[in-house]
Amino acid sequence: MSTESVTAPTAARRARLRELLRERGLDALLVTDLLNIRYLTGFTGSNAALLVAAADEPGTEDRTVVCTDGRYLVQIAEQVPDLRAEIARASAPRLLEAAAEWGFGKLGFESHVVTFDQHAAWSDAAAAVALVRAPRLVEQLREVKDEGEIELLRRACAVADRALADLVARGGLRPGRTEREVGRELESLMFDHGADGISFETIVAAGPNSAVPHHRPTDAVLRSGDFVKLDFGAQVGGYHSDMTRTYVLDRAAAWQRDLYDLVARAQAAGRAALAPGTDVAVVDAAARTVVDDAGYGELFLHGLGHGVGLEIHEAPGIGKLGTGTLLRGAVVTVEPGVYFSGRGGVRIEDTLVVREQEPELLTLTSKDFTIV
Amino acid sequence: MSTESVTAPTAARRARLRELLRERGLDALLVTDLLNIRYLTGFTGSNAALLVAAADEPGTEDRTVVCTDGRYLVQIAEQVPDLRAEIARASAPRLLEAAAEWGFGKLGFESHVVTFDQHAAWSDAAAAVALVRAPRLVEQLREVKDEGEIELLRRACAVADRALADLVARGGLRPGRTEREVGRELESLMFDHGADGISFETIVAAGPNSAVPHHRPTDAVLRSGDFVKLDFGAQVGGYHSDMTRTYVLDRAAAWQRDLYDLVARAQAAGRAALAPGTDVAVVDAAARTVVDDAGYGELFLHGLGHGVGLEIHEAPGIGKLGTGTLLRGAVVTVEPGVYFSGRGGVRIEDTLVVREQEPELLTLTSKDFTIV
Repeated sequence: MSTESVTAPTAARRARLRELLRERGLDALLVTDLLNIRYLTGFTGSNAALLVAAADEPGTEDRTVVCTDGRYLVQIAEQVPDLRAEIARASAPRLLEAAAEWGFGKLGFESHVVTFDQHAAWSDAAAAVALVRAPRLVEQLREVKDEGEIELLRRACAVADRALADLVARGGLRPGRTEREVGRELESLMFDHGADGISFETIVAAGPNSAVPHHRPTDAVLRSGDFVKLDFGAQVGGYHSDMTRTYVLDRAAAWQRDLYDLVARAQAAGRAALAPGTDVAVVDAAARTVVDDAGYGELFLHGLGHGVGLEIHEAPGIGKLGTGTLLRGAVVTVEPGVYFSGRGGVRIEDTLVVREQEPELLTLTSKDFTIV
Repeated sequence: MSTESVTAPTAARRARLRELLRERGLDALLVTDLLNIRYLTGFTGSNAALLVAAADEPGTEDRTVVCTDGRYLVQIAEQVPDLRAEIARASAPRLLEAAAEWGFGKLGFESHVVTFDQHAAWSDAAAAVALVRAPRLVEQLREVKDEGEIELLRRACAVADRALADLVARGGLRPGRTEREVGRELESLMFDHGADGISFETIVAAGPNSAVPHHRPTDAVLRSGDFVKLDFGAQVGGYHSDMTRTYVLDRAAAWQRDLYDLVARAQAAGRAALAPGTDVAVVDAAARTVVDDAGYGELFLHGLGHGVGLEIHEAPGIGKLGTGTLLRGAVVTVEPGVYFSGRGGVRIEDTLVVREQEPELLTLTSKDFTIV
């Protein structure tokens, strides 16, 4: 039994998953969500399934098997040296066969991602196995990040910070440029600073477009006096950063200063409310009350934030109707926005780690009101 | 009844879908796949559902309704002026309510994308409606492209052609650069030439890495005498191009010329086999036989090709075990590859339209053996 494999983060995650399986009386879990497989094994290919046996132990995981197809023969050996790998085009059916052979009577499956048709086909193929709904078990683990994950998120956020600083420093935000040009430059700068990819299509929204929460960049031209809202992120090692900043070009009107100040106060209140054990609805309310009190509650069109990690949106959701509490080690965004349709809007968003004391800010770009 | 809305491509697609619904005795289809919704309505938002009533007629589609949430209030009105739109966060459940109200007894759902959990929740919510498996109906329509779609694919392929020509002309492929640098430059050039996005993460594989069919770019350095395999594409208007070219850097060895010649002959045979009514397995065999006859059949590790459109991989699959025949108007790739593990590999891929006479080539970059 190798100490190394026991202490590998992926082995530790599988051990935590087995606790959940045993609590639920499951013999094993058939994992088919590719991000969950990546989280549990390190494998990054585009076709895989993973069978995690509840009774296995770290170091002797005899009946915990990953399966992928022939394209990934080399990659699976490199990325997952500590698990048995099978090669088959139909990876889930192959592992269902194994589960049946090993007499796994109660086999959990990821019913939140498995399609109705897949389930029907599997039920036909593996009549000896009882397929049991077991949604979001791995996602539940993923909600709390380990320090290795937080370091990747920190690096992803640093890439975004540096890219934005460069963009502003080189005069990338100036009247006459199009939203699309700005978006491409910002994305290119993230790659220059070491991003493996972008988190999502960069939002650049100028003038009235800034009032559209999820505006896609167009050939609209930035003009003096415009709000320019930038919502963007970098991927590093599979982990996503997420940040929004809203600037004013050249000269600001009083209403713009007032609106910015309001959203900044709401955002600060939301950040201050981040603590382990706090209800997500309470966190949302901390920020929303600030906007409500100013009479603009109707114009805060979305939830306050969301978890971020291997996905850009993951648990926990932080919104008015959200349930559950924040966990220590969760990484979340806080991003209130107020949108004056046809005129302009402001959103300010950070990514933070929920810590025992105060939250750790990962996106470090200034949130002071800024005229560029 | 407006002539314009009757002749809109999306209205024509909905009319074709209704024929399929009537053939199957369905009262309506609940469409929840976002690309299918885009295809049928033009809506590009990230949350939507669409109810298509079988009995509706173009111009008076009273019970064909699209639903999205409040973020897309403006966008849905702009993009889908010809259908009734509802605003609700839970778009599918809202349309299930409507289906129940209208007495739609047999409601098809997209069982190939709807998860097991969604189906369970819907069944509880809409007990009056019988949810009937109706997988891939819209995908079936999407397999045959209309001329508007083909024009977008043609433009996407032209963007990729021009980007690659620029890359080569400016000396972008030279010893000392990394795979990652080359990939980023090629992607940037596609944006310069009008891409809305890239089709997938660009594959740049140099030297031994070219023997890995789906290699992700690394910091590996291009060296004199290397094969350099580039597999990439551009998105235009939601449609994807897909092309692979393999070059040799500086100087070529005899085995490289021989390998290239073999794959080029296989690819030409595959292209020549593209005709309406031909079995996809026959098309695959046309190319594979060339490789088999040379004794390298084992090293052609994947299928010959796939359909391409709103998705980078869609119907039809063209492989050894594929079933069905090519349809006129299908747009497919032809991409044989032979891979010498540890040494290098060659893949040559085009995107083509299946036409009555000979196929129309959309990716026009030369396939002559090229030393760069």
